[in-house]
Amino acid sequence: MKFASRMENLKASEIREILKLIENPEVISFAGGLPAPELFPVEEMKQVANMVLDEDRDKALQYSPTEGFPPLREKISLRLRDQGIASTKDDVLITNGSQQGLDLTGKIFLDEHSIVLCESPSYLGAINAFKTYMPRFIEIETDDDGMVMEDLERVLKQVDQVRLIYVIPDFQNPSGRTWSVERRKRLVELANEYDLPVVEDNPYGELRFEGERPPAVKSFDTENRVAYLGTFSKTFCPGLRIGWILARGEMMQKYNFVKQSSDLHTSSISQREINKFMEVYDFDAHIEKIKEVYKMRRDVMMAAIKEEFPEGISCTYPQGGLFTWCELPEEMDSKEIFKKAIEQNVAFVPGGSFFPNGGKENCFRVNFSMMGEEKIKEGIKRLGEVLRIEME
Amino acid sequence: MKFASRMENLKASEIREILKLIENPEVISFAGGLPAPELFPVEEMKQVANMVLDEDRDKALQYSPTEGFPPLREKISLRLRDQGIASTKDDVLITNGSQQGLDLTGKIFLDEHSIVLCESPSYLGAINAFKTYMPRFIEIETDDDGMVMEDLERVLKQVDQVRLIYVIPDFQNPSGRTWSVERRKRLVELANEYDLPVVEDNPYGELRFEGERPPAVKSFDTENRVAYLGTFSKTFCPGLRIGWILARGEMMQKYNFVKQSSDLHTSSISQREINKFMEVYDFDAHIEKIKEVYKMRRDVMMAAIKEEFPEGISCTYPQGGLFTWCELPEEMDSKEIFKKAIEQNVAFVPGGSFFPNGGKENCFRVNFSMMGEEKIKEGIKRLGEVLRIEME
Repeated sequence: MKFASRMENLKASEIREILKLIENPEVISFAGGLPAPELFPVEEMKQVANMVLDEDRDKALQYSPTEGFPPLREKISLRLRDQGIASTKDDVLITNGSQQGLDLTGKIFLDEHSIVLCESPSYLGAINAFKTYMPRFIEIETDDDGMVMEDLERVLKQVDQVRLIYVIPDFQNPSGRTWSVERRKRLVELANEYDLPVVEDNPYGELRFEGERPPAVKSFDTENRVAYLGTFSKTFCPGLRIGWILARGEMMQKYNFVKQSSDLHTSSISQREINKFMEVYDFDAHIEKIKEVYKMRRDVMMAAIKEEFPEGISCTYPQGGLFTWCELPEEMDSKEIFKKAIEQNVAFVPGGSFFPNGGKENCFRVNFSMMGEEKIKEGIKRLGEVLRIEME
Repeated sequence: MKFASRMENLKASEIREILKLIENPEVISFAGGLPAPELFPVEEMKQVANMVLDEDRDKALQYSPTEGFPPLREKISLRLRDQGIASTKDDVLITNGSQQGLDLTGKIFLDEHSIVLCESPSYLGAINAFKTYMPRFIEIETDDDGMVMEDLERVLKQVDQVRLIYVIPDFQNPSGRTWSVERRKRLVELANEYDLPVVEDNPYGELRFEGERPPAVKSFDTENRVAYLGTFSKTFCPGLRIGWILARGEMMQKYNFVKQSSDLHTSSISQREINKFMEVYDFDAHIEKIKEVYKMRRDVMMAAIKEEFPEGISCTYPQGGLFTWCELPEEMDSKEIFKKAIEQNVAFVPGGSFFPNGGKENCFRVNFSMMGEEKIKEGIKRLGEVLRIEME
């Protein structure tokens, strides 16, 4: 029995395998990208579930249009104005979390041997979604201001077969860094010049603790070549699996076709529940609550890292989002550190999987949204001890 | 800006385009494969939504494992015993409706130019899902007992590159026909002989109005080469998008990988809601209610067809499911009839899209689950008039 050749490239995501390992409640986990469950609006969810079933009983449980529930699409389109994006509900397609947006992106843009340009490091869920379509990846250098545009231009000049530029400009996963406005503009200029599509993945942008929110890459797009992926997983809850793609014209038509063949449409009732929540409750106030808690956790974590980690390790200082990214001396292997750490009941994600072409093992990602402050202190202390022993 | 070559093959599903046309409430629609919304367990849904959020608040709204919620997987596995299938929960992967099962099937089995063998006609949603992976199709003859095994064997002997056999043995979509037990056994023998995977798609099997339920094709599988796709869309409601894949060993591992890269996992809360419904309420009694109503509608429809359709049209007599399939004289074009019918505010699905290689336009599919009895009578009367004028 033969499988498709694409199956030879795929393996289970390292993160999701790790998440299985650490189901032990003794483990203090900085591994997942999980939002804090104590902030889920549980009582409100009960209310909106009842309201939706009372008001819209037939349609909430029936098949529904591929593109999604119009009032929810409208609300998403309006919220995007805050990032300088002018759009209408027709530009919004509802997906099963933004992971599905990534899969559909691979489906519409990538042939075997197509080249994807991405940040180095980049989100491993995206890398895995794209790998299904058998492209090659070229990693573009990054620094504290995001992707280095000179490196991007150098590659664009030299390489044919580029079919997609994939970026996470706000509180990047895994690095926690945010792109400067200048680089955002420049990216769109280069995409125009080389006639390429850009996918801007933004699951974390609304969770900014300080500083001004920069305009989206999409806001500089005058040629309908940027698709923007968003999600409610971090601002509401991930269990409902509701995300969206903002795109226009031919690109949106293609996304719609592949959404339809992939699963017809996203849950009719879940879309209505989020829409109702946004109608009845103050969504911005809810996000403020999340930001307050995560900011405190970020502060506690960064202070603990400063205190507990030995010299020779540098970690990014994220202004929002869920992660910091730590770099060890070059000869060290974060997978080995992980094994030692898990013996001490503390976990993180080794950094190797965030580099699609591999070869960089001396980094790791640390999440600060999921654990309470005391656990953050204790976990970082344990991790610091492991690191000190390994670096002696 | 270039799209992937697969996009050249794709067009929006004819059915879903038709469904948009007929949103006018004046239209009596026999087009969709929609379950009757008046049978949705709305009050029960409210109860279970509350219970799940009370009992399992954190996990119901959080990320969850790719394979699905274990108690639901367990219940599905147990129910499959009725069809002679021995399995455990580990053999069950939860999907977003069985449409996602079809997409994942294409992903794991099909390369460009791979050959899919399917019934002629076959389900157009499956055809569209597979087309994304750029295979070729060979249609196998069917009759009242299902796929004609002699024709299948003839093709298997002659053609290399076959990579998948796709079948809908129970109340087939679109034909409404059910395979004999002998053909089910023979299919597995041939799959073993030619070392091929089989996908058995069974969304309608539980909706049998009369006669004995035959064992599933999967029940004859001794080599883990049959994957079985199921769904709650027809027995509970489609709006939640909950289906499943039953498979084992390497096949299940591959399905799990591509589910993960496609959208991480299916809604945590929706899985728990269906599981809770099955715990608290009598799911079999609920299905009995659905069957009672659909049987009546089938009876009314078949009687009306006999009364109202002109001679020269033959329709299948389904023992369950949602559809009958009508064949016009060969020179007629059901797309033309559709245009005339929609002017009279009655709709069906022209049959051409159910033949992946095209060329057969003289059939159409008629749904009997969605409309009440009076509307069925009136709609078939209108359709009969259109047909009489066209056939004069």
